[in-house]
Amino acid sequence: MPHPLFEKHKPLLAQAMVAIKKRGYWNPYPESIKAYGENALEEGRVAFEAYRDAQFYLDQPGVIERGGAEDSPYGLSLNISYPKCHPDTLINAAKSAMTAWIKAGPDARAGVCLEMLDRLNAHSMEMAHAVMHTTGQGLSMAFLSAGPQAQGRGLEAVAYAYREMKQVPETALWEKPQVNHPGLRLAKTYSIVPRGIALVIGCSTFPAWNGYPGLFASLVTGNPVIVKPHPSVILPLALSVAVVRQTLKEAGFDANLVSLLVDDPDTPIAREVATRSEVRSIDYTGGPVFGEWLEEHARQAVVFTEKAGVNCVIIDSTDDYQGMLKNLAHSLSLYSGQMCTTPQAIFVSRDGVKTPDQTIPIGQFELDLSRALNVSLADTQRVLDLLGAIQSPATMARIEASRELGEVLLESTALHHPQYPDARVQTPLLLKVDVADTPAYAEERFGPISFVVETATTLESLSVAERVMREQGALTFMVHSTSRPIWQLSEEISLRVGVALSFNLTDGIYVNQSTGFSDYHGTGANPAANACLIDSAFVASRFFVVQSRHPA
Amino acid sequence: MPHPLFEKHKPLLAQAMVAIKKRGYWNPYPESIKAYGENALEEGRVAFEAYRDAQFYLDQPGVIERGGAEDSPYGLSLNISYPKCHPDTLINAAKSAMTAWIKAGPDARAGVCLEMLDRLNAHSMEMAHAVMHTTGQGLSMAFLSAGPQAQGRGLEAVAYAYREMKQVPETALWEKPQVNHPGLRLAKTYSIVPRGIALVIGCSTFPAWNGYPGLFASLVTGNPVIVKPHPSVILPLALSVAVVRQTLKEAGFDANLVSLLVDDPDTPIAREVATRSEVRSIDYTGGPVFGEWLEEHARQAVVFTEKAGVNCVIIDSTDDYQGMLKNLAHSLSLYSGQMCTTPQAIFVSRDGVKTPDQTIPIGQFELDLSRALNVSLADTQRVLDLLGAIQSPATMARIEASRELGEVLLESTALHHPQYPDARVQTPLLLKVDVADTPAYAEERFGPISFVVETATTLESLSVAERVMREQGALTFMVHSTSRPIWQLSEEISLRVGVALSFNLTDGIYVNQSTGFSDYHGTGANPAANACLIDSAFVASRFFVVQSRHPA
Repeated sequence: MPHPLFEKHKPLLAQAMVAIKKRGYWNPYPESIKAYGENALEEGRVAFEAYRDAQFYLDQPGVIERGGAEDSPYGLSLNISYPKCHPDTLINAAKSAMTAWIKAGPDARAGVCLEMLDRLNAHSMEMAHAVMHTTGQGLSMAFLSAGPQAQGRGLEAVAYAYREMKQVPETALWEKPQVNHPGLRLAKTYSIVPRGIALVIGCSTFPAWNGYPGLFASLVTGNPVIVKPHPSVILPLALSVAVVRQTLKEAGFDANLVSLLVDDPDTPIAREVATRSEVRSIDYTGGPVFGEWLEEHARQAVVFTEKAGVNCVIIDSTDDYQGMLKNLAHSLSLYSGQMCTTPQAIFVSRDGVKTPDQTIPIGQFELDLSRALNVSLADTQRVLDLLGAIQSPATMARIEASRELGEVLLESTALHHPQYPDARVQTPLLLKVDVADTPAYAEERFGPISFVVETATTLESLSVAERVMREQGALTFMVHSTSRPIWQLSEEISLRVGVALSFNLTDGIYVNQSTGFSDYHGTGANPAANACLIDSAFVASRFFVVQSRHPA
Repeated sequence: MPHPLFEKHKPLLAQAMVAIKKRGYWNPYPESIKAYGENALEEGRVAFEAYRDAQFYLDQPGVIERGGAEDSPYGLSLNISYPKCHPDTLINAAKSAMTAWIKAGPDARAGVCLEMLDRLNAHSMEMAHAVMHTTGQGLSMAFLSAGPQAQGRGLEAVAYAYREMKQVPETALWEKPQVNHPGLRLAKTYSIVPRGIALVIGCSTFPAWNGYPGLFASLVTGNPVIVKPHPSVILPLALSVAVVRQTLKEAGFDANLVSLLVDDPDTPIAREVATRSEVRSIDYTGGPVFGEWLEEHARQAVVFTEKAGVNCVIIDSTDDYQGMLKNLAHSLSLYSGQMCTTPQAIFVSRDGVKTPDQTIPIGQFELDLSRALNVSLADTQRVLDLLGAIQSPATMARIEASRELGEVLLESTALHHPQYPDARVQTPLLLKVDVADTPAYAEERFGPISFVVETATTLESLSVAERVMREQGALTFMVHSTSRPIWQLSEEISLRVGVALSFNLTDGIYVNQSTGFSDYHGTGANPAANACLIDSAFVASRFFVVQSRHPA
């Protein structure tokens, strides 16, 4: 008998299977706040407030003590304590929980995962506030990225993994004809067996959006999952784990299939857990240093990393100069450049920017881009939501230090947040450098720091950008050009480097944006990520096929 | 316009796509020698003879010198010299060859690969002789394993990879509805980009059957392939590469997409090439020591290994005692145990073997199994084809050394081969040990060496077998039992260990046999192999998806 949750969610799963094949626009989780009810946002705020100055409830085994010291980028005192559990206990509990989950099979697991996503969707508003006050995202982005869009990514992961699992038949009859004898017949069964305990290491900027793909891909393929949030951004994944555990429990499974492993910056635990023999897969999003450490040291596990790189923009020519400036300014401002997809190096030739009417001299372009940034920051109502706050003091220091790297085109200044006077709000820093100043622009500088890189020609822009992206990695590459040959060269570079390419974005779509079910986020082909979120390779190695055969 | 070779082979590819989904019996390449024409075998022999005492022709660049010193297990002098090429030259040539191959796209590449397989099929008979006189396989097995069955494995790899590639749409229109505005529209293209140069490291026993999956999976996904044969078994892969290169050339592609890298035992080259930054995937079949070295050191590549383990058999009860003995004896004799799937440890309880009439005492079982082995060796016509010859002098030495490991139930003796007086033909060695003699039976002993392991109960047999397979790895696990609970326990062990299970084989199917399109060979879940030949995970990480988008 099919599991009732599979029956309940089968139609949505079927739609998701079509969506991963078509890759048009689709997300079943509403992206408009209004769809959640008139008072939803306020109810979410109240729910979020209830977590402050309190003990977060999680009925996990092996609690050693309580801990967690999140520091809100908006200066809000959070003071939430979480159970800190012994990894041994969580690992052992995960192992025990596994057997029934494996036996339930792909359909039931998919049904339970989709139920989790539905329930997470109902928590979107409190999640929005939780993400805002830990990552520093503006509330609109926090709602989208950690609510419906993260849920969509989770669903996408389930759909990919489900498709791969269902391509394996459950049984087969093998019948080999024999000359002058009856045929040889074997009955075969094929079982999906999970790889083993999965570790999901959360990041400090998009804990849900980046965390759900690995969490759900591992879970639906039968693996228990230990979720280790970033020590400064715990609440969003704690909330997620709580919802997931509750769903498991109500569906009759052991909640310890998914557990939260909290540590703090002074006694980090990720290295120790990531190299445990029981941990068989790791999903990591975050800085390149620890990502590379994991790739190098966690040899017992399959490691999926999404790190960062130096995203490049080429400005050659445009037939919508103002649209281009506005779009680019918005890209640089969005969440203060704290996206792994934000452009860092903007290559412009000293020949200027060709437009239908005239060629804009490079100096003019630099002024115009700075002005466009100022314009995008002029709307004091919207700017705070657009910029959000700076997640980490390290990024504040990086902005300060980066001023020395070139000629300042636009200064980064602190903005006052009327509601949160201690919020770390900074406008973007825009610098100008020569293409020869490689150390300045060709190293990842996470945060609202970008460079106009002056080159001799667009061809030089392209060739230098290719080298930088190949060596440092990149998740996005944008080209503004009206020239066919430049398009073609750019496409060739994109294929050689393995980086997602956007042409001529001038409207309401930004190069930073990667939409579920349509965009492949990361490729695995350059140093910015060793995996793509989400493709077949992201899910296929999370399970094995084990067969049994006997004479029929 | 579709590539003509895609048009030609489309119907077969479509059948293969159905076959990998159904996993019944299917192989389009005829497995009967007769199907190849009346004189095919003799023509194959003549073709093979032409390679002896000659220079093997391969128009590869970068030739340093000629080399290769294969030693036929049948004592035949081969004296074939191959071009030895500089790896740098082959790597650079592969890189140049890549661009047009990528651009051709999945359909054209699949068409060309299927053409290669057709042509390899036409060479099946000379391949049979080449494999016989390098690996030591009997001619019947050499024909099947390196002819139609290897070709089937190649086709299976193409079908798997093709399915994964075709799940990525080539284009999409993304259209996001906007309130009070026209929808935002992006046109997107998705390209399949290969991982990079693939290295296929051949083995000394089944060079084609084990080599074709990686070769064709990498090639069809757009990667150039460097094939490094085992220094003592070069000819089969040299023949294969020659056919593949000729097909590429005739189809208008650069033959250097696939090249042969010959080395010799005194100056092995695999370690150096396997760790080159340009080498991005490695397929390896062979001994565990080098397999583990590759997994540990070739960090820049995705590494697929199929090593070896300790395959276990549990004898509990049977309703066809004679059939069981005959089947097991055949399994142990086939190619003198030189298959990674041959059973090594046969666990029997001192309570004996339950049959419908009586319980056979363990001593009687040991005599009966020895007798069954002698019977299978009695037919002097067939025995030589069944046993084949011992591929490597190291295996001869291992047989000699293993005599000391237990009580000899059946001595390994040399057999005279009337046609090849210097052939290394040995009958299987069967030893008896106590379950406590772990070092004797729980270490892989490649060759015709197996152990009856005496235990207290079938439950002990099962639990010790589980531990051995978990620690040492295993590719096959056979259980003879008429008891439901024993079946169930065995299935649970098979799932926990991740090993393919066969029950009660008493007829013309042997536990060693793994048939293309139906059996999953290896799982990736235990130390015997880190990959399965062939599942989705075996193909999915050989390519990346790179997208490009622009306003529509």
